[in-house]
Amino acid sequence: MSSDEDKLSQTFSALANTTRRAILARLAEGEATVNELAEPFNMSLPAISKHIKVLERAGLITQGQKAQFRPCTIEVTPLIEISNWTEQYRHIWESRFDQMDDYINQLQGE
Amino acid sequence: MSSDEDKLSQTFSALANTTRRAILARLAEGEATVNELAEPFNMSLPAISKHIKVLERAGLITQGQKAQFRPCTIEVTPLIEISNWTEQYRHIWESRFDQMDDYINQLQGE
Repeated sequence: MSSDEDKLSQTFSALANTTRRAILARLAEGEATVNELAEPFNMSLPAISKHIKVLERAGLITQGQKAQFRPCTIEVTPLIEISNWTEQYRHIWESRFDQMDDYINQLQGE
Repeated sequence: MSSDEDKLSQTFSALANTTRRAILARLAEGEATVNELAEPFNMSLPAISKHIKVLERAGLITQGQKAQFRPCTIEVTPLIEISNWTEQYRHIWESRFDQMDDYINQLQGE
């Protein structure tokens, strides 16, 4: 098992949670502090901090060092890695769609 | 939390394992029985069967009903869902690359 594969497992694992994916969606609109993130989710600060730590360990976000604010920023590298991993299977779903098209055309021609 | 989101969590969770991703990569080349899958991984049948069950529950593979063979087939729907989820972030990494390009051009111009 290469360390690259381990990292991919860590990213997939971090994304296997609706709250963490919602945090990422919020950060896609711009950086936010932990307080700002906690508010819409109606979660305690310790609960949201735990999710933020998981995202940070997976490299999906970074947290600034600015005194009490420490805004969180979304990081794109693990998302690109997930995208690249998924792309290797695109030819399979495209060929299945082609087969489906052929089948439908065949039905319509009959 | 919608059931769609739950399903996405289940897919991400199933993919957070190198052996399960390797099984998918093998099935991308064509269907295979549990015995055929177990061989290259040098794993016991019960161990590989456990991974197959996780992939099956996430809808990433299906297992045929043909007597003792029961070949496994890769299923594309959850992979398309992961791809669609990731695509929503593409504009972020593309805009960051654009910013990087601008910065490099600026440095080269100086």
